[in-house]
Amino acid sequence: MAGDIDSANTTAVERMTEARPVLTGLGKALELIPGMHENLLLHAGPPIAWEQASGPLRGALIGALIFEGRAGGVEAAERLIVNGEVQLAPCHHHSAVGPMAGVISPSMAVYAVENTTRGNRAYSNLNEGYGKVLRYGAYSEEVQARLRWMHDVMAPVLGAAIEACSGVDVRALLAEALHMGDEGHNRNKAGSVLFTRQLAPHIARTAPDPATAGAIIEALGDNALSVLNPVMAACKAMADAAHGVEKSTIVTTMARNGTEFGIRVSGLGGRWFTAPCPQPVGLYFPGFSAEDGNPDIGDSTITETAGLGAFAMAAAPAIVTFVSGTPQDALNATMEMYEITAAEHGAFTIPQLDFRGTPVGIDLRAVVETGITPRVNTGIAHREAGVGQIGAGLVRPPLQLFTEALEAFADNYGF
Amino acid sequence: MAGDIDSANTTAVERMTEARPVLTGLGKALELIPGMHENLLLHAGPPIAWEQASGPLRGALIGALIFEGRAGGVEAAERLIVNGEVQLAPCHHHSAVGPMAGVISPSMAVYAVENTTRGNRAYSNLNEGYGKVLRYGAYSEEVQARLRWMHDVMAPVLGAAIEACSGVDVRALLAEALHMGDEGHNRNKAGSVLFTRQLAPHIARTAPDPATAGAIIEALGDNALSVLNPVMAACKAMADAAHGVEKSTIVTTMARNGTEFGIRVSGLGGRWFTAPCPQPVGLYFPGFSAEDGNPDIGDSTITETAGLGAFAMAAAPAIVTFVSGTPQDALNATMEMYEITAAEHGAFTIPQLDFRGTPVGIDLRAVVETGITPRVNTGIAHREAGVGQIGAGLVRPPLQLFTEALEAFADNYGF
Repeated sequence: MAGDIDSANTTAVERMTEARPVLTGLGKALELIPGMHENLLLHAGPPIAWEQASGPLRGALIGALIFEGRAGGVEAAERLIVNGEVQLAPCHHHSAVGPMAGVISPSMAVYAVENTTRGNRAYSNLNEGYGKVLRYGAYSEEVQARLRWMHDVMAPVLGAAIEACSGVDVRALLAEALHMGDEGHNRNKAGSVLFTRQLAPHIARTAPDPATAGAIIEALGDNALSVLNPVMAACKAMADAAHGVEKSTIVTTMARNGTEFGIRVSGLGGRWFTAPCPQPVGLYFPGFSAEDGNPDIGDSTITETAGLGAFAMAAAPAIVTFVSGTPQDALNATMEMYEITAAEHGAFTIPQLDFRGTPVGIDLRAVVETGITPRVNTGIAHREAGVGQIGAGLVRPPLQLFTEALEAFADNYGF
Repeated sequence: MAGDIDSANTTAVERMTEARPVLTGLGKALELIPGMHENLLLHAGPPIAWEQASGPLRGALIGALIFEGRAGGVEAAERLIVNGEVQLAPCHHHSAVGPMAGVISPSMAVYAVENTTRGNRAYSNLNEGYGKVLRYGAYSEEVQARLRWMHDVMAPVLGAAIEACSGVDVRALLAEALHMGDEGHNRNKAGSVLFTRQLAPHIARTAPDPATAGAIIEALGDNALSVLNPVMAACKAMADAAHGVEKSTIVTTMARNGTEFGIRVSGLGGRWFTAPCPQPVGLYFPGFSAEDGNPDIGDSTITETAGLGAFAMAAAPAIVTFVSGTPQDALNATMEMYEITAAEHGAFTIPQLDFRGTPVGIDLRAVVETGITPRVNTGIAHREAGVGQIGAGLVRPPLQLFTEALEAFADNYGF
């Protein structure tokens, strides 16, 4: 029995770590994302209805409908969703992931990542940068203007640049970024400049004019999270490769919708295990405190699911200036995660640990046995729609998710 | 007496660490470098005559005269120098520094760095990238073609881009790069992409055409040492700020010409203390071994002089894949350097050491008392002219330099 599970887990984790995600292009969600349609909005985390949605998720849904030209304001947008004219579905049900609210609407541009090892694909939206942004629930005209520029001006050039350089090898980029102080989730400083470095020459060559080229390179290069979304799509492609292995207890999804934290397990198909989201503990921007914070939100936990983020935190000691703690805490975070993972990553290594591979493949059994839940690095959104990011910190999913999933696993397989 | 020296050293090190080097522009050596003239070639390290010059230095001097159109080949070039028609002088005598052979000829483009705290300036040449390059003593037509492209096509655009972004704050760039796994000497991966990231938008805007913009951004971005030369000029500006403080035992120059290692001391004016260069210990490229290596060469030890390079190695654990050793060795290197330095840098901090400042300001007395010589990260050149880089490793200047300098100090000040 344990042998069967171990062997299934080996298969699952090998598929995850041998995945080679390559960013191959950029296109319209409606055209690329499987099952996307004109009346569908995708969001982060497990399934949720409008009534249960938190402020930042509501704000992002409203903003997306304004962006689509489907609603002029808050009431109209809410009506469309409550009436069922516009439906909601998790990004994860459509091979996609989005940071924070993670809202993807039909005409939004999305990055397409292909796992060249197994052929599966994953998608993510564009990163808007900092401040008042849709993913944190802001939807004002300032946010809309930025989204329009990104879609009308930046996206076509970015797509051409990605094709011109024959794709971006995201696994290689991440491997290099881990040697440059990133952990791939909350700290993507090195990854974002490496991404900019690779695309900039092609942007210069393919942009319609020099001023546009300059503005696009700046938008990518000045945003220390510009690579987060392709990285998340890459992690999704890696995690999906490990999904659906009979008898495997490897966690292949961790995601939050701002109300609930949900996980899925390789050997348990599409079933979500959910519980209320805890609130992150961390550092708040001046003028904000824990009282303003929303419960944890976003699909970006796909990075931890794939052996990055808090799991790779030992590689990113400077991150503590952002999420709180000391460099020793960062080291401890990674060391602890070895206790609940099935393998060490062959491609993602940590110089600080003598180039040991990152802990990868969360084993449900190990989490329940040890009581150690996965660590997650995260951003903190204001709990009201329309405000935006107010901090960054650390969070863990409730243990109960893993206990319930393991019980379901036992029921399912009769162990 | 000791109190006088301590107080002089405090002044010197404060001038070094409070220096704010900003890359302000790029121009012709003949026009920018003080004392440069049509018949002068600058080189790395302490003064040297052709007869004593090693293979890589000779190769670079030959290559520079071919580049200048002064000689068609090896014999003609040698004749010009031996006859005294063309003179040689250390870069360090002309507010300049150059990596490896460090040859700067009159019509070469040089970066201009200004220490905005005290107004002093320093200069360095452009980085050619890898393989057969002038700084490692290669001078073939391939090398010449590359130099011509860099000077005719890249330099004017780079100069315009630097001006368009109102200069590059090299101290801020280095501070960030240290948090991204660089040590600022042999590992400038993060610094070079940060440099590229800052200039790329302006290059896109100011290049004569999109193809040229793309090629220049690629030349900067694909060269993990593209920022080394501006960094060296910045370190020279910092070290020069500390030079000339009466009664100070702080080392303000360490440099090698491929034959001799030389140092200068703040309180001892322009006087060089020299001894034969040791050979670096490190890793060789396939097909090469220690027998092929030249003794250590280059002004790049200016980085260690300013509290970077091997002194900041704890910040750069991944460098050991390049220079040999383990991440623990990298940590130990920095820890050891605290024993011979007068201060900890306020701007350059090491996340791995809980954001402790890098060891800075080599105190002659401490080196002699402890017998611990400064550590240096370095590239290894082939001992014959015309070949190029064959490895990278670690080296230390001979203790005798410091002993002699301390004796001279005692003589000079009557202590």
